[in-house]
Amino acid sequence: MDRKTVTDSTDDGFAEVVTLGQDSPLRLDSGDSIGPFQVAYKCWGKLNDDRSNAVLVCHALTGDQYVRGINPITGKKGWWQNMVGPGRPVDTGRYFVICINVLGSCAGTTGPASPDPETGRPYGLTFPVITIGDMVRAQAMLLDHLGIESLFSVIGGSMGGMQALQWAVDYPDRVKTVIAIATTWRHSAQNIAFHEVGRQAIMADANWDHGRYYDNGGARPHAGLAVARMAAHITYMSERGLTSRFGRSLQDRDRVAFGFDADFQIESYLRHQGISFVDRFDANSYLYITRAMDYYDLGSPYGGILAKAFQGTTTRFCVLSFTSDWLYTTGESRHIVRALNAARARVSYADIDMDKGHDSFLLDCPEMFTIIRGFLSSEADSIGGFQS
Amino acid sequence: MDRKTVTDSTDDGFAEVVTLGQDSPLRLDSGDSIGPFQVAYKCWGKLNDDRSNAVLVCHALTGDQYVRGINPITGKKGWWQNMVGPGRPVDTGRYFVICINVLGSCAGTTGPASPDPETGRPYGLTFPVITIGDMVRAQAMLLDHLGIESLFSVIGGSMGGMQALQWAVDYPDRVKTVIAIATTWRHSAQNIAFHEVGRQAIMADANWDHGRYYDNGGARPHAGLAVARMAAHITYMSERGLTSRFGRSLQDRDRVAFGFDADFQIESYLRHQGISFVDRFDANSYLYITRAMDYYDLGSPYGGILAKAFQGTTTRFCVLSFTSDWLYTTGESRHIVRALNAARARVSYADIDMDKGHDSFLLDCPEMFTIIRGFLSSEADSIGGFQS
Repeated sequence: MDRKTVTDSTDDGFAEVVTLGQDSPLRLDSGDSIGPFQVAYKCWGKLNDDRSNAVLVCHALTGDQYVRGINPITGKKGWWQNMVGPGRPVDTGRYFVICINVLGSCAGTTGPASPDPETGRPYGLTFPVITIGDMVRAQAMLLDHLGIESLFSVIGGSMGGMQALQWAVDYPDRVKTVIAIATTWRHSAQNIAFHEVGRQAIMADANWDHGRYYDNGGARPHAGLAVARMAAHITYMSERGLTSRFGRSLQDRDRVAFGFDADFQIESYLRHQGISFVDRFDANSYLYITRAMDYYDLGSPYGGILAKAFQGTTTRFCVLSFTSDWLYTTGESRHIVRALNAARARVSYADIDMDKGHDSFLLDCPEMFTIIRGFLSSEADSIGGFQS
Repeated sequence: MDRKTVTDSTDDGFAEVVTLGQDSPLRLDSGDSIGPFQVAYKCWGKLNDDRSNAVLVCHALTGDQYVRGINPITGKKGWWQNMVGPGRPVDTGRYFVICINVLGSCAGTTGPASPDPETGRPYGLTFPVITIGDMVRAQAMLLDHLGIESLFSVIGGSMGGMQALQWAVDYPDRVKTVIAIATTWRHSAQNIAFHEVGRQAIMADANWDHGRYYDNGGARPHAGLAVARMAAHITYMSERGLTSRFGRSLQDRDRVAFGFDADFQIESYLRHQGISFVDRFDANSYLYITRAMDYYDLGSPYGGILAKAFQGTTTRFCVLSFTSDWLYTTGESRHIVRALNAARARVSYADIDMDKGHDSFLLDCPEMFTIIRGFLSSEADSIGGFQS
């Protein structure tokens, strides 16, 4: 990376796409490999002279590298505007923050919608099936390319938390701290079941055409993808949150309409979630990334004993869960904490009382902000405070 | 009803379809009306001389009147074989048991797939939108037709429980006892959300064709209906039940296949649930019945105060919930019980510790069987025991 560019980056950040794997392709967990491939990232703040203040933010299933600032795809603000920025818990005045669009996604990093270099045409289902481990290895390749050897922290919620934990397991020497929020150590049967419903909804859409819809003159599996998003979105909110926000309130009416239009506000809200999603996300990427999450099982290479995955780690961990998260429950986080304790890792844990369900990690949550700010600051202070 | 037929009915029961509403149509909650329409039912046991031993069993969303014996549509055993029969908790040696396919369904009672008498062609979306109250009024019309004035009990789980409670509210003088299992007093935002996903999946299927698929030369919205069923099925099982039954077990493999075929057993199981469902259920019926459930709010006509719905009731209630049911939770049943208490109704309540989720009411559950057997027997004994 051009050091000057980083130094010069403003609050708006600096976005870039680089090509990796030209000479030696990325080996994937499937045994397949991929290369060359593109990696899109965005960064904020200033990398200090000894390159010790880099914080990698990992995004969730449908997220992207646009953590803060205007997202050029949606025209909306970044997804973690309140967490990352000057004076925010992940303080871009102190840390150099980077977020990398994951492999298989569709915001600049190579995924199924990208052209296969061998054919010049979109991969579609010829794109290799990837894992969370593959995503992390692609990120490590980018950091190598940028000359960032060590990460002060890897932070993520949901699938971002899976990557953060994977970083700690696969690159223990490169990661000083990990903050894993609203996440799990392996996808449960229920987690897989919800993803499978979404995938089946996409594949049931006649426009999906076995993933070859890119050339169909504009006809895309939008209906199926919208249904997938709707089903997933229910899992991101708590029953109590839905009840307090929507309850049985009707749409601009004082009685039900006795029809199949959106009668209840929750229906209208869900439909909006589905419809607005299809404009910003590729259906095949949804298949690939949900598959990667389903395959995620951090204990599997260690005979199912998660503690062994963390054996000997010197990384310091912060694990956060939300009481109302029924997608990746408090119980899953506690399992992670117990494994870390068994591995004698240093770990802080909080189960935050918040009624907004899984998506709490994306919302204004003062307790989460306070904990993360304190965790990072105390660790930064303990190693000298990043004087540049 | 031909009394001799009832007297002669064996354990296999007696199935019949009658036409109602020729002279005076059924008035619906929407303000619309329907008639003539057909009602299909099945009954077991013998109606006693004073016609006081009739038990109405109400079926759930995708259920039918084939409570026991071979279901002619599926070729499988009835859905409540262990609950209803000679010597079973709902003892057909003592009670005359009748189950009626609900209005809007597709097992013989008129629904959107039935011919509209005015056109001779399937209703499709010209079928009127119905409510749980409408279903119950149609059932009452059939019982009038059969000369059954009073019901010893109305019993149902899930949507069947909604009907049972509706019976108690709308016909308090006709119902001696009500057994409401794994049910609710109103559909919550989350309940509506899951149904809306199912409906959107059906309507997203190109074969749905705005509900006019009956004439499409065999092309039906099977893919969408299967997705709807899969999404719903997840809500019928508990996270713990899914984990203990499937966990992350793979399909006949020792490693994941890095593809989109069913890798995990839970995927294969869900796909089977979806695929087998479409052979026995009409997609439009699914739209109409889920809509009726979403509209269900027993407190609504009483200013939201559920107790008022039961004011002055002499019906005796038995409310049962399952600890692992996250579709219609213990909390919902407790709300019903509190309202019944406030209305000074006689009510028994049990929250049964079972880890199989909502579908527990369909499974072998000795505690449920014991409670229901005892509840019915004690009430039957108290009124003289149905000596014929």
